[in-house]
Amino acid sequence: MVVWEPPSRDYDFLFNEVFDAIGSIEGLGYDDFDADFLSMLIDGWGTHTKEVWLPINELGDKEGLGFKDGIITMPKEFKEAYRQGIEEGWMATSCKPEHGGMGVPTFFSAVTWAEYGTSACMALSVLPALSIGVYEVLTHHGRQDLIDYFASNLATGEWAGTMCLTEPHAGTDLGIISTKAEPQDDGTYRITGTKIFITYGEHDMTENIVHLILAKVPGGPEGTKGISLFLVPKYLPSEWEDGGLEGISRDLNPDHNGVTCSGAEEKMGLHASPTCVMNFDESVGWLVGPLHGGMPLMFEMMNRERVATGMMGLGLGEIAYQNALAWSLERRQGRDLKGIQDPGQTADNILVHPDVRRMLLEAKVNNEGSRALAVWAGILLDQMHSEEPEVSEAATALVALFTPIIKAHFTDLGCETASTCMQVMGGAGYCTEYGVEQFYRDVRISKIWEGTNGIQALDLAGRKITQDYGKNLRHLMWPLTQFIEENRDNHGMAEFNKPLYQGVKGLQQITLLMIAEGMANPHFLAAGATDYCRYFGNVLLGYMWAKMAKVCLQKKGEPFYDAKLASARFFFKRIFPETVSLAAKIQSGPKALMDYPVEMF
Amino acid sequence: MVVWEPPSRDYDFLFNEVFDAIGSIEGLGYDDFDADFLSMLIDGWGTHTKEVWLPINELGDKEGLGFKDGIITMPKEFKEAYRQGIEEGWMATSCKPEHGGMGVPTFFSAVTWAEYGTSACMALSVLPALSIGVYEVLTHHGRQDLIDYFASNLATGEWAGTMCLTEPHAGTDLGIISTKAEPQDDGTYRITGTKIFITYGEHDMTENIVHLILAKVPGGPEGTKGISLFLVPKYLPSEWEDGGLEGISRDLNPDHNGVTCSGAEEKMGLHASPTCVMNFDESVGWLVGPLHGGMPLMFEMMNRERVATGMMGLGLGEIAYQNALAWSLERRQGRDLKGIQDPGQTADNILVHPDVRRMLLEAKVNNEGSRALAVWAGILLDQMHSEEPEVSEAATALVALFTPIIKAHFTDLGCETASTCMQVMGGAGYCTEYGVEQFYRDVRISKIWEGTNGIQALDLAGRKITQDYGKNLRHLMWPLTQFIEENRDNHGMAEFNKPLYQGVKGLQQITLLMIAEGMANPHFLAAGATDYCRYFGNVLLGYMWAKMAKVCLQKKGEPFYDAKLASARFFFKRIFPETVSLAAKIQSGPKALMDYPVEMF
Repeated sequence: MVVWEPPSRDYDFLFNEVFDAIGSIEGLGYDDFDADFLSMLIDGWGTHTKEVWLPINELGDKEGLGFKDGIITMPKEFKEAYRQGIEEGWMATSCKPEHGGMGVPTFFSAVTWAEYGTSACMALSVLPALSIGVYEVLTHHGRQDLIDYFASNLATGEWAGTMCLTEPHAGTDLGIISTKAEPQDDGTYRITGTKIFITYGEHDMTENIVHLILAKVPGGPEGTKGISLFLVPKYLPSEWEDGGLEGISRDLNPDHNGVTCSGAEEKMGLHASPTCVMNFDESVGWLVGPLHGGMPLMFEMMNRERVATGMMGLGLGEIAYQNALAWSLERRQGRDLKGIQDPGQTADNILVHPDVRRMLLEAKVNNEGSRALAVWAGILLDQMHSEEPEVSEAATALVALFTPIIKAHFTDLGCETASTCMQVMGGAGYCTEYGVEQFYRDVRISKIWEGTNGIQALDLAGRKITQDYGKNLRHLMWPLTQFIEENRDNHGMAEFNKPLYQGVKGLQQITLLMIAEGMANPHFLAAGATDYCRYFGNVLLGYMWAKMAKVCLQKKGEPFYDAKLASARFFFKRIFPETVSLAAKIQSGPKALMDYPVEMF
Repeated sequence: MVVWEPPSRDYDFLFNEVFDAIGSIEGLGYDDFDADFLSMLIDGWGTHTKEVWLPINELGDKEGLGFKDGIITMPKEFKEAYRQGIEEGWMATSCKPEHGGMGVPTFFSAVTWAEYGTSACMALSVLPALSIGVYEVLTHHGRQDLIDYFASNLATGEWAGTMCLTEPHAGTDLGIISTKAEPQDDGTYRITGTKIFITYGEHDMTENIVHLILAKVPGGPEGTKGISLFLVPKYLPSEWEDGGLEGISRDLNPDHNGVTCSGAEEKMGLHASPTCVMNFDESVGWLVGPLHGGMPLMFEMMNRERVATGMMGLGLGEIAYQNALAWSLERRQGRDLKGIQDPGQTADNILVHPDVRRMLLEAKVNNEGSRALAVWAGILLDQMHSEEPEVSEAATALVALFTPIIKAHFTDLGCETASTCMQVMGGAGYCTEYGVEQFYRDVRISKIWEGTNGIQALDLAGRKITQDYGKNLRHLMWPLTQFIEENRDNHGMAEFNKPLYQGVKGLQQITLLMIAEGMANPHFLAAGATDYCRYFGNVLLGYMWAKMAKVCLQKKGEPFYDAKLASARFFFKRIFPETVSLAAKIQSGPKALMDYPVEMF
């Protein structure tokens, strides 16, 4: 019953008309990559996900996983779909050609790839997303023999990767983990401990699973400063005896490397994505990066996954919208309050009702605004690697700023959108048959994964804003205030530019307030962080809508552009005003929270 | 794993200290009902639901229903729990003693009963709630022989009741239903048609099921004016041959009355509450109320169920909160930003974090504010039947006004609260083991049931406000502005009274705007309805918090009252400011919605 069309026209608009994606990666080593190839990639991935991934999504939800004697079996349809993706090269788009990857820009793999993958089958999309995360950390920080041994199989998807952080008593607070890594004379470590909530920690989709584990080497510093990162494969190479992996074949030892799965969580959604309790019992592992230097590496991987998680909010918001719209176009109930529209029918189409339009447009406009910001962020992810210092510095600053917002705001919006779309469909929305209830359940984890949205907000308000004396924020404010200035006398832009200006001014004021008050009282900053992050998200989406509107004003009269202008208007009239309340809540400070007697909660 | 304590202390406070519940029902025929009896009822029902209902809630979710050959089988534990409730008289609290009921005031049955029932086991609570709804319509509008035959078995819960409204093509728009009722010479009707989404349409909890069905008698007026209400039992009396039911025994004919269930929906939640497709094939039925006068009766029942549905938002919000709090009290992650609180532990309790407090307090304060408004509404439901015209008129006006707000705002809040509480618990919140994910799924239907929240908002903005030239609203504004006036010079009340005053002034302004603009353009009213309803809900909760604060200011120093004052502060600082944004959205009007090109959605 579920419908979905990849929004490729929108990506074409964003990559080519709103941003100059191809132009912005000049000199970054993507010399053969042009607009035609990008377009082909978008279409090809859209077709693959629609034809291969989407049909298994509901099945995965219903059938879920098998778990017996520590072995997790995935639905066979998942194995087939994943295998087909490997064969067509779709699992390795961003990886280097020398490792069997396509070597395409990050703006495709981190944005379009992620959105389509999560729309079509979020449970499956998580597997390659994690593998690529492991690939990136390994290839940037790993020893050459580890890279040679693991990178290409991770890139192509033949082997899978995981991030092992959380322990039963340590989630947000990784400083207190107790997994241990004992150094051996041969340069390896023996890892022992229990990790929970490990996504795809165990499964039968690939012949090996490569775990990146946070653990502590005895005698190291307390807290996060004593954490190191280790690579631990589920199966060791059969030829390996000790030390490194130079020149060893990829045949695997059939006995596992002390790595066992002792349970899989039953969850509200994402039933086909295993969430494992993993036990490591003197498992052989290799250090990745410096000793006691695990946290920055894990953050590097985590930042990537945070953007990927944000895209889940958009991906599920988009497919929820498309299904609610399809329902609305068919459903006839009541009459237009201004008079009968379809006299030949017993009732008018529900799109005549303002409140139905309100719901659909909230969904559509937040989806499209998020997609625009995602494309910008994707381009910046590439530009971080520019050799021109001013380009890479600006890109790095903006990515630092955008990452928590994309993670938190997109996933908040995705959950709200799934709910709104369910509401459009009434009772049908709540019934399994129509599919949207699965999106509602699946997308909900995205607010929790990779650091809850509260943690994202603290990262934004407590770190990203003040980092380097506000450098990140300056790199945003320069182009943003310049944009506003440029359009000040553009009459057609006034309806977008004016509220954006108000929003930016407000953002500057509450930012100063947060910093000033936060210095004296860190609770002030923490108490306002979530509302601040949402305020900021709205300003960024407002910027995106104003930017899109500017492009579309040149092309008025063509339906696609007229719709975008109407969406921009809807955004500023019906969504953006929430910033006013958010500012009031932030200004109220922490007193109402912190004075509350603990014993009377 | 789930914890829950009935919030009986809060009800004691509300019934006796904030409102004078016992005093307000003087002369209404509850002569033996006093504060002690109320307190005993509250405690007794709290104990029953905690000990008998709560333990089956998770089981109901996991096991769900059996459906085979048109027969739905409920989990045996549900049958046992329900039977125990019947035996202890808990299913019949509000029904008349002559029908075997307890005859207690509605403020208990519609409020406390409903909250505890839905907290402990929402799926089960729906069954008696519907039966009582059928009982009320029947006893107020039915023929004496129907009352004599059905009322007492409905009251005690021996038989169950349903509301059969929706058809595949007609949900919100009942005017287009096609179920037919053919009149017979003996005064009965033969009902034929298909109804969908019929809660507890079929089950094996009771030996008979009494359906109230909307149907059209051929030749009647078009639209809702041609709808009549019929009572159709699943099984006819064995002695019945034709005509009425005078003096007939309650033995049932084992052949069903043309009533069959052809399917049960698979749903996101509420797995133990059957949602049936019901087929009526020349089923014998009796007219209830006047011919073609079915809609007002159905609305009477629906209004009752709307309050009951609103209470589901509160019930699930409360149990979600209690579980998130229990988790928070145990969970240690990170340190207080102002310095270590528990040096003897590896981490501080998460209640040191402002953002965790923000989430828990949003949940708690909305729950407690809603409970206060519910208690007020419950008292008004009783006072509607006062013989003093000014009392009954005011009560009727306020109930008309509050019903859509309780339905829509409480269920919106309930869904938000369940999500917030899941967020507090992080990954655990998403896992089945911890229970909150079930609340998140179950409560979601409450925004859809008994008229979606969008319909409630239209009922408020399009009918309840303008009805009788604004009489309903005047009956609210009189006590509300008087309250504000009385407390104008009360220094301790200023922090509550001032924002309340601003909110009420804003409400008056946007109400005038809605009415004035709505007269020229009904789309204006419909476009702002949802935001208006939420604005109104906030003002009512603000009034409740100010009223509670006034009581508590007298008793400062006692922890219970100090906590209430702190809650009132939190409400006005961190929740109430959302009204500002809502007003801005309403003021923006329908243009951004209605000018959107249909083909570009």
